[in-house]
Amino acid sequence: MSQDLQKIIAGRRAAEFVQNDMVVGIGSGSTIAHVINALGERVANENLNIVGVATSEKTRRNAAQLGIPMHNVDDVDKIDLTIDGADQIADDFSAIKGGGAALLWEKIVAFNSRENIWVVDASKRVPKLNQYLPVEVIPYGSDQLFKRFKSGGFHPTWRLDQNGNPVRTDSANFLIDLHLPIIESPRLLGDELIKMVGVVEHGLFTDVVDRVIIGNENNVVDILEVK
Amino acid sequence: MSQDLQKIIAGRRAAEFVQNDMVVGIGSGSTIAHVINALGERVANENLNIVGVATSEKTRRNAAQLGIPMHNVDDVDKIDLTIDGADQIADDFSAIKGGGAALLWEKIVAFNSRENIWVVDASKRVPKLNQYLPVEVIPYGSDQLFKRFKSGGFHPTWRLDQNGNPVRTDSANFLIDLHLPIIESPRLLGDELIKMVGVVEHGLFTDVVDRVIIGNENNVVDILEVK
Repeated sequence: MSQDLQKIIAGRRAAEFVQNDMVVGIGSGSTIAHVINALGERVANENLNIVGVATSEKTRRNAAQLGIPMHNVDDVDKIDLTIDGADQIADDFSAIKGGGAALLWEKIVAFNSRENIWVVDASKRVPKLNQYLPVEVIPYGSDQLFKRFKSGGFHPTWRLDQNGNPVRTDSANFLIDLHLPIIESPRLLGDELIKMVGVVEHGLFTDVVDRVIIGNENNVVDILEVK
Repeated sequence: MSQDLQKIIAGRRAAEFVQNDMVVGIGSGSTIAHVINALGERVANENLNIVGVATSEKTRRNAAQLGIPMHNVDDVDKIDLTIDGADQIADDFSAIKGGGAALLWEKIVAFNSRENIWVVDASKRVPKLNQYLPVEVIPYGSDQLFKRFKSGGFHPTWRLDQNGNPVRTDSANFLIDLHLPIIESPRLLGDELIKMVGVVEHGLFTDVVDRVIIGNENNVVDILEVK
């Protein structure tokens, strides 16, 4: 089965965890697009009554177009459940997010959510995190920060748009991607990065997820309970 | 002697530490205004050749008007010396900054500077930090963060402008001021705050300063070597 089909079955299964009257954090990315589609169908066909909170402007637009009432994270009392994707999930259930440039809002929504579900295709599961790590940084001083990343052995690259300009996040910051062969201790690395002046947030998510939904070969969905 | 005169003599004394061909980080606030004036005079009268790097848009404008060539922090190789003020300096040489809303850029410039001088009037010296602590936060999710500060016993208040709207920093973020009776361990508190999702930076400056210049009564300037 293709990766696309894995994303579809996992995304649709994840949407089933949403119950009536929930405030639902809705993530970003290609897998979450299927969650949004499924939620839109449930709102239309089952009279599902929910409020959505978006982790990106793009998600907000797409969900609103499908009839899901979208609120700002600051306009809800609490978020009951957040469903989001991940770029990689390790065996210790740490993850890297931010390939789609939405890591800051994703982390803000996740940390304000009572429960978090991640939904991915099988290719995202790894023993240890080993892909590029996005870091959101304040533009002012970011060249100096880039130099510090370089001298510190983090192998940084700028996230650029099609025109070669720095990508701007929804909070108007820049993204620097770090290229480490393997991340042995996500918690320690996260602590080191967040203390660096000019770093707004990083793509390491630890101690966040409650349930992981994985789309596998042969139409099989694995559901892992983490906590 | 008045507090204003203390600021003037301390500010002018601090400006004497600037040498020819230096790249100088220039802070923000009422005491630093006197440093900028003195540097402008030295550029005009002594042919002092320096490049300034500003910690706020206001500082950049004021220094440029006095003929100090101003560069962006990202357009210089390194900063030789930064002169900045502080809202409070404790006996352990930790400080609170950010009363003027410039703490983020101040910290970025300070951490990219080879040497740091703080210049204050005598009223700013305290045994332990005990005034309000500014925290710069991402607007998205800031109401939720405010609630977490409140339930955590940090006694937060919003920094508002004259019209009652949230102040925007030079990086377009919000400021929340925390009101703690006394800050026993600035390092521990700083670590706790910086790890909170949505916090961009806080006003605690530890392990930064090399020299403190204090304007006292009777025209006396104290110069303390920290490191």
